[in-house]
Amino acid sequence: MSRVVTFGEIMLRLVPNGYERFFQSSQMSATFGGAEANVAVSLANFGVDVSFVTKVPDNPIGRGAIQNLRGFGVDTKEIVFGGDRLGIYFLEKGISQRASVCIYDRNHSAIQQSSPRDFDWDRIFDGAEWFHFTGITPALGDNLIQICREACHQAKKKGLTISCDLNYRRKLWDTKKAGQVMSDLCRDVDVCIVNEEDAKDVFGIKIKHSDIRGAKIDKEEYKEIARQLGERFDFDKVAVTLRTSYSASINHWAGILYDKEQFYTSRDYELRVIDRVGGGDSFGAGLIYSILNGKDGQDAIEFATAASALKHTIEGDFNRVSVQEVEKLADGNQSGRVER
Amino acid sequence: MSRVVTFGEIMLRLVPNGYERFFQSSQMSATFGGAEANVAVSLANFGVDVSFVTKVPDNPIGRGAIQNLRGFGVDTKEIVFGGDRLGIYFLEKGISQRASVCIYDRNHSAIQQSSPRDFDWDRIFDGAEWFHFTGITPALGDNLIQICREACHQAKKKGLTISCDLNYRRKLWDTKKAGQVMSDLCRDVDVCIVNEEDAKDVFGIKIKHSDIRGAKIDKEEYKEIARQLGERFDFDKVAVTLRTSYSASINHWAGILYDKEQFYTSRDYELRVIDRVGGGDSFGAGLIYSILNGKDGQDAIEFATAASALKHTIEGDFNRVSVQEVEKLADGNQSGRVER
Amino acid sequence: MSRVVTFGEIMLRLVPNGYERFFQSSQMSATFGGAEANVAVSLANFGVDVSFVTKVPDNPIGRGAIQNLRGFGVDTKEIVFGGDRLGIYFLEKGISQRASVCIYDRNHSAIQQSSPRDFDWDRIFDGAEWFHFTGITPALGDNLIQICREACHQAKKKGLTISCDLNYRRKLWDTKKAGQVMSDLCRDVDVCIVNEEDAKDVFGIKIKHSDIRGAKIDKEEYKEIARQLGERFDFDKVAVTLRTSYSASINHWAGILYDKEQFYTSRDYELRVIDRVGGGDSFGAGLIYSILNGKDGQDAIEFATAASALKHTIEGDFNRVSVQEVEKLADGNQSGRVER
Amino acid sequence: MSRVVTFGEIMLRLVPNGYERFFQSSQMSATFGGAEANVAVSLANFGVDVSFVTKVPDNPIGRGAIQNLRGFGVDTKEIVFGGDRLGIYFLEKGISQRASVCIYDRNHSAIQQSSPRDFDWDRIFDGAEWFHFTGITPALGDNLIQICREACHQAKKKGLTISCDLNYRRKLWDTKKAGQVMSDLCRDVDVCIVNEEDAKDVFGIKIKHSDIRGAKIDKEEYKEIARQLGERFDFDKVAVTLRTSYSASINHWAGILYDKEQFYTSRDYELRVIDRVGGGDSFGAGLIYSILNGKDGQDAIEFATAASALKHTIEGDFNRVSVQEVEKLADGNQSGRVER
Amino acid sequence: MSRVVTFGEIMLRLVPNGYERFFQSSQMSATFGGAEANVAVSLANFGVDVSFVTKVPDNPIGRGAIQNLRGFGVDTKEIVFGGDRLGIYFLEKGISQRASVCIYDRNHSAIQQSSPRDFDWDRIFDGAEWFHFTGITPALGDNLIQICREACHQAKKKGLTISCDLNYRRKLWDTKKAGQVMSDLCRDVDVCIVNEEDAKDVFGIKIKHSDIRGAKIDKEEYKEIARQLGERFDFDKVAVTLRTSYSASINHWAGILYDKEQFYTSRDYELRVIDRVGGGDSFGAGLIYSILNGKDGQDAIEFATAASALKHTIEGDFNRVSVQEVEKLADGNQSGRVER
Amino acid sequence: MSRVVTFGEIMLRLVPNGYERFFQSSQMSATFGGAEANVAVSLANFGVDVSFVTKVPDNPIGRGAIQNLRGFGVDTKEIVFGGDRLGIYFLEKGISQRASVCIYDRNHSAIQQSSPRDFDWDRIFDGAEWFHFTGITPALGDNLIQICREACHQAKKKGLTISCDLNYRRKLWDTKKAGQVMSDLCRDVDVCIVNEEDAKDVFGIKIKHSDIRGAKIDKEEYKEIARQLGERFDFDKVAVTLRTSYSASINHWAGILYDKEQFYTSRDYELRVIDRVGGGDSFGAGLIYSILNGKDGQDAIEFATAASALKHTIEGDFNRVSVQEVEKLADGNQSGRVER
Repeated sequence: MSRVVTFGEIMLRLVPNGYERFFQSSQMSATFGGAEANVAVSLANFGVDVSFVTKVPDNPIGRGAIQNLRGFGVDTKEIVFGGDRLGIYFLEKGISQRASVCIYDRNHSAIQQSSPRDFDWDRIFDGAEWFHFTGITPALGDNLIQICREACHQAKKKGLTISCDLNYRRKLWDTKKAGQVMSDLCRDVDVCIVNEEDAKDVFGIKIKHSDIRGAKIDKEEYKEIARQLGERFDFDKVAVTLRTSYSASINHWAGILYDKEQFYTSRDYELRVIDRVGGGDSFGAGLIYSILNGKDGQDAIEFATAASALKHTIEGDFNRVSVQEVEKLADGNQSGRVER
Repeated sequence: MSRVVTFGEIMLRLVPNGYERFFQSSQMSATFGGAEANVAVSLANFGVDVSFVTKVPDNPIGRGAIQNLRGFGVDTKEIVFGGDRLGIYFLEKGISQRASVCIYDRNHSAIQQSSPRDFDWDRIFDGAEWFHFTGITPALGDNLIQICREACHQAKKKGLTISCDLNYRRKLWDTKKAGQVMSDLCRDVDVCIVNEEDAKDVFGIKIKHSDIRGAKIDKEEYKEIARQLGERFDFDKVAVTLRTSYSASINHWAGILYDKEQFYTSRDYELRVIDRVGGGDSFGAGLIYSILNGKDGQDAIEFATAASALKHTIEGDFNRVSVQEVEKLADGNQSGRVER
Repeated sequence: MSRVVTFGEIMLRLVPNGYERFFQSSQMSATFGGAEANVAVSLANFGVDVSFVTKVPDNPIGRGAIQNLRGFGVDTKEIVFGGDRLGIYFLEKGISQRASVCIYDRNHSAIQQSSPRDFDWDRIFDGAEWFHFTGITPALGDNLIQICREACHQAKKKGLTISCDLNYRRKLWDTKKAGQVMSDLCRDVDVCIVNEEDAKDVFGIKIKHSDIRGAKIDKEEYKEIARQLGERFDFDKVAVTLRTSYSASINHWAGILYDKEQFYTSRDYELRVIDRVGGGDSFGAGLIYSILNGKDGQDAIEFATAASALKHTIEGDFNRVSVQEVEKLADGNQSGRVER
Repeated sequence: MSRVVTFGEIMLRLVPNGYERFFQSSQMSATFGGAEANVAVSLANFGVDVSFVTKVPDNPIGRGAIQNLRGFGVDTKEIVFGGDRLGIYFLEKGISQRASVCIYDRNHSAIQQSSPRDFDWDRIFDGAEWFHFTGITPALGDNLIQICREACHQAKKKGLTISCDLNYRRKLWDTKKAGQVMSDLCRDVDVCIVNEEDAKDVFGIKIKHSDIRGAKIDKEEYKEIARQLGERFDFDKVAVTLRTSYSASINHWAGILYDKEQFYTSRDYELRVIDRVGGGDSFGAGLIYSILNGKDGQDAIEFATAASALKHTIEGDFNRVSVQEVEKLADGNQSGRVER
Repeated sequence: MSRVVTFGEIMLRLVPNGYERFFQSSQMSATFGGAEANVAVSLANFGVDVSFVTKVPDNPIGRGAIQNLRGFGVDTKEIVFGGDRLGIYFLEKGISQRASVCIYDRNHSAIQQSSPRDFDWDRIFDGAEWFHFTGITPALGDNLIQICREACHQAKKKGLTISCDLNYRRKLWDTKKAGQVMSDLCRDVDVCIVNEEDAKDVFGIKIKHSDIRGAKIDKEEYKEIARQLGERFDFDKVAVTLRTSYSASINHWAGILYDKEQFYTSRDYELRVIDRVGGGDSFGAGLIYSILNGKDGQDAIEFATAASALKHTIEGDFNRVSVQEVEKLADGNQSGRVER
Repeated sequence: MSRVVTFGEIMLRLVPNGYERFFQSSQMSATFGGAEANVAVSLANFGVDVSFVTKVPDNPIGRGAIQNLRGFGVDTKEIVFGGDRLGIYFLEKGISQRASVCIYDRNHSAIQQSSPRDFDWDRIFDGAEWFHFTGITPALGDNLIQICREACHQAKKKGLTISCDLNYRRKLWDTKKAGQVMSDLCRDVDVCIVNEEDAKDVFGIKIKHSDIRGAKIDKEEYKEIARQLGERFDFDKVAVTLRTSYSASINHWAGILYDKEQFYTSRDYELRVIDRVGGGDSFGAGLIYSILNGKDGQDAIEFATAASALKHTIEGDFNRVSVQEVEKLADGNQSGRVER
């Protein structure tokens, strides 16, 4: 079985219950998540042999994160202990016209304090086929940029496929620095995952007429993003996710895959959103799974899009679905009927 | 006041909270339910004198089921104690594109282990007017087929009206056996309740163009089901429920009643589904109530359909609504406005 | 900073969790609310210096209400202790076709037992600019009518602006008495807030073709309500809220403001309702805030309508939103996208 | 099977979760209870045929109380609908040195508003053997005194045994009135249940050296209470409960029975208190059960005391234990070992 | 690092919240547990490389059990999928004089339906040092007796140390059959773990004066159990746990170890019991850990007893403590002070 | 009414529910606390006019802390907004032999990042009578030492009484630095609050024979601490708390007050601990209240000790009790009986 390595931050995620505002009651849901950890869990749920690499503090919070990942079958042996704290993010879930609120308390985290010496990529990549990271990791600091560079360099050297989700986060860095760093890192990347905002913010690729806040999506414009990115970085594959947010509760969702020869467009989903955090990550995991398992372009984009459609119905960062469930939806069964 | 007897299984129902997947947290809702028990509770809530007949183990779980039913005013005096266990079903509630998951752990239950000697139908039916059962009960085993036969025979002999909801369950038996057994039992049945899948699976009655997974329903086709069933078994009345599942969250719902002379079609409902288990049972109860209370064909199908529309908004198997609430909706008030 | 005084009842609010029916489980949410208290909390959340005046029993329930209000920054120093009990209302939240149920247990409350001697309006209004009350307060009894009269009289004398939300409650008084009392009180009122039912029930102002239970709203008709009211009572401003209840879950919502010269109409909102109690109160608070802060007619009605649109997404009587959040929505951003 | 009738008030009981103070969080447990209802539920759990007589409002709260009682098997057919509200009591559970807090909000309840015409005791007592009430019921008002008198009179006439638990409540009436009324009612009473405070407050019977707040109990003194009461009212039996409160968490508990010939003293229990409300009621129910089932004096007092010892370990007013569980403890097995 | 293999059943464990009786509310805690799984989790928490071997159904319940074990770091690769259901046990937690109630619903489980062909012990034991099972596993059926025999035979052949906890369960088999089977299996056992009841029920070894329901324990008598068992089966080591149940809440706890030469007696603990299920299993795990890590007799019995003392303070079957925490307590620090 | 100012850190406090270990479930209680905030809340609950001074981030977490304090009536107007984050502490509550676990995540907090310019003590102390801080605040960093110095200097200058609780925290600084800094700050302090460990760790004052982990306390030794401290720093008053931890659940608790002339010793309490965090702070608040209200030495130490005894029964950092409740216990009523 092929082995995938993902690298990034895992955070404690604190969320008020239901649709409460922060501190409306004193109960919070305390789980774990983070872009690359989310991809790892998705892949483990698909039966893929996957390692998640990070650094966590050697205290009950760091160990809690590991126990959580390990339960899903993610290999946590390459996780390094050390540093002062696990990053935290507070999430208040929006609904209808009320937007979700995200507060980062992730500075000074163990991973942010890590150094290149913490990770022996040569050993970590032994026996691996695929390396995945996102634009969040280099955004954590210059040391992380260097670590990502070394990881990509070593991965390339050992013949791994490298995928990267741009994942631009305005609260972590500015578009200028993001553009420079990601342009550099993308030279080693084979599969690039992106949405319309990332393409604009990180690489300045703008499309016409697109209104992510409600107007109908013009898929032709999105293909243009994929084409331009493919050209600029010579990616093997570019995948673009298309989200239209009618409200915090109702989103439209679709995906496009471009393999330098052809465009493959998924079916559209009208989603009732239970939790949209991790939606993009589950798309990335679906894509990696599809490519690793030799699905053709159309099947791959349908699988990735269906996987992430299901993610929006699940509480927490992690996409708790099986290959079988994704394929049932990818095949067009959206009825949600119970079997008995 | 007329007295109704229903017979079947009551199970422990274990459901993760909210829209969690199984074991996403360690809290589960533990309630009780089962097709015929659901009909009994609905009828009790409508003020009908109703007995539920079953067998449960003499332990806190069996006694818990009885306490639950008794609270609603269902007569539980005819429930027999014995056997090893109460059947269990695990339900994970779907939402949007994610389907509900139902796991049966109902083998070796007290009712499944029951024998014809457990139930003295002659005495049970004393003073009763109506007997209701569903296709689930004979599906539990050959002993249950025999018990259902005896019950129907005795009911017929004592002049009760007999209603049966086909309720085909693929996880309990195959279509061939179901067809044979139900054909036999249906000879005593006066009022038959059915949906499009049941009609096809149990009696091989197919309709054209129907797509239960989203396409618009052609009501004329559904009338054909009622007509054919009415002819084949000489039922007094056939009621058909029409469900279109756009997703696990949005269903369309309507009903048709056929009395061998005329078709009565209810208004349509677009339902936001809180819990669709027991939807059919609440329809059956609404129909029985309507007939017992002399409602005419149109009022009867409106009442039954409105009752089951409300059921979809209520957690658990049981339809916790009053006659007054159903009639308000059956009269066309769907606004959901609060009175104060 | 301008100071606002609101006067009325605060009640204990008992609500089953989620969409449970009363006593479906034994857990209830116990919070506080009431029309004028809701306005006070909204204003405090907008940064306005606001006092809430009422009478509560000197026991943990009355003190709990005060602690709750004080947390939001509402000035509670003018609350009088005494009387036997805090009024209670039980609320069961509806969904889809199932309506919410509201049970009042508010008789014999401390405020209902209060006497004019309890409130020294001359002192209370010292330094204040605005007085707000609603039609619920005089509906509590003849002593409250007298207290409201004295408050209005004193407010007028000291030059405060007076606003009143008609808030007709059929369970508290009949339309005839309401009409007489409110006609009298409205002579001192500057800003009147009203919906279509209030206008009809209290003042007999009927509009054509309006169907609050689902049909499309004809805004021109609503303008007619504002115009007639403005004429009859010489109000400075009349604000009308427009609600169309498609179901307990989906409402359309908009507002109209009339300043004797012009009509200002807000944008329309399609709301997914989490909790609609307090929707009107949050509209009133938004309007008061807007006028106090010199917003022009269009901005004022957009702010008030956006504020109350957000209220529908928040559990409890209180509108837990900031000026910034309201303005973002009033500016047209309904996408509900998370910032990170 | 012998039939018991109990008469009194059932209230909504609102309790913060765990050991929270009032409104420390917004969740409350909403159940039902009341002295005579508690006795009825205990007896039903012991398999006794028991009716509870009261008046409740015809709303979801009154009906919720009935559903709750009916679930336990209590006959609720004699409950009268009417009146404005169900009485409420708020309970905050103490622990260690912190005392429990009880707030009554029971004025103006349906039962308090009831009249003698509501209850046809001649019919209610048909086929009954035993009538039980407590001193709380006449404390609710002069109409209730009259109703209790009529009930006792009719019960006596039809040959029922009458039991009464003095249950003095300072918040409901004063000792003088209680003394007059209870002296009058006690002339019809056969079995009197009392604790040291009741005896002192209602009948002025004082014992020496007793310190209910911690000192060792002198059982001889308690026998004196029983002896004096037995003499004064010619009771067939007097039962006295002995509680020593070391703290809100640790109580000692025992019982004495006097049958005019002999004293029977139960074993002592050191209780870890989960919920002490209803402790005395469960003792009364245990005593009634014992006498109805012909237990001798020693067995009766052991059963009653063991039943109430178990009650202290159970949340809520109701004693959810079986005869078998009580007898196991009454036989001396206090080990709490699990059987498996 | 040495590797341990444990073999047995893992069950779904359903427990009402807090000290509620069954179905007092509809929420239950749904976790997993079982004697040998508990030992595996304890060992994993101590950092031991441990495999748990069992058979579970290939459904979300079986997979939930695996995810739970895997999270703790237990190796689940040898778990076989198949069979119909996961066994269930219902537990109601007692307190004070009220005993815990345990209801088994474990018949027809996957492990009970397993056959010797399911487990290739030769391969499973590759690289292992220790095999642990308990008397519960052979009690599940004759096939399990055979499987245990083969496992012991193979373990012996490959030089593993074998430990067995007698764990007699009256609800699974009778003392006669248990005696025969366990006598046979014990011939291969090196380390035997036992309590006073097991010794009496399974091997007929009785001690004088011992009263497990409260009287002071005479440790000399318990040494006699160890001595007799050691002699009869030539065990390397015999460990005896000593529990005195003063109530469901207060237990005394200690342990004795006998190595055929000497007796080692642990310190005594007075435990406030949060959850006593799994107490014996955590003792076994502590003992295995101690022996594997070369602790001497006194340190071993102190570690095992301290580990199980801590278990009694933790909800659920699993002992969630680290070596460091156990050693702190084993060293005598019982103060429970918080470090900050 | 006299006005008190307290200064320090308020943190977010995250605690697993019940006695769960960290992440045993995903629900956590999220409240607020911190030594000096706890004193402020206690004083507000006693009706004292009290300001809490700190710095919090201008986000929903900082504002949540303020709302919480403000609800209790604490004046929050002097709280400064700014900085990156609110400090967090994670608390796992121990029971029986299992100790509580406290994890600090309080670095880089707003208060830790504050500068002397943030606080204008001259203005803050206007109209104040008393200033209170604890040894935790200067332990946060050199800037905080300077701020504390300035505050003390200004307080002295304006004639305020200054109290200080030594509160040594090993996780924040070492004993040497604590000794130097606190010696310096204590020169301005009038009332010093201390326990045996603080006295030893900060000032090297050791007493004989004292075993805080269970042995009987020798009060004479504790008086020696008070005497030595009083002499060394010429404090007006020294108060010493005496805790003996038999386990995490059972503590003994008492207090001693020394006014340079006499020793006053409180009664002893055996506490069942619900939450011991904030126990010392509630003692300090009780002492400040007593002195401000002119209680004599014996009454003061009884009030302070009773207040903190009650705190141990209340969840969270804050002592939610009234003067009346404290005085009832200080007067010797420990029975915990419910009044009704």
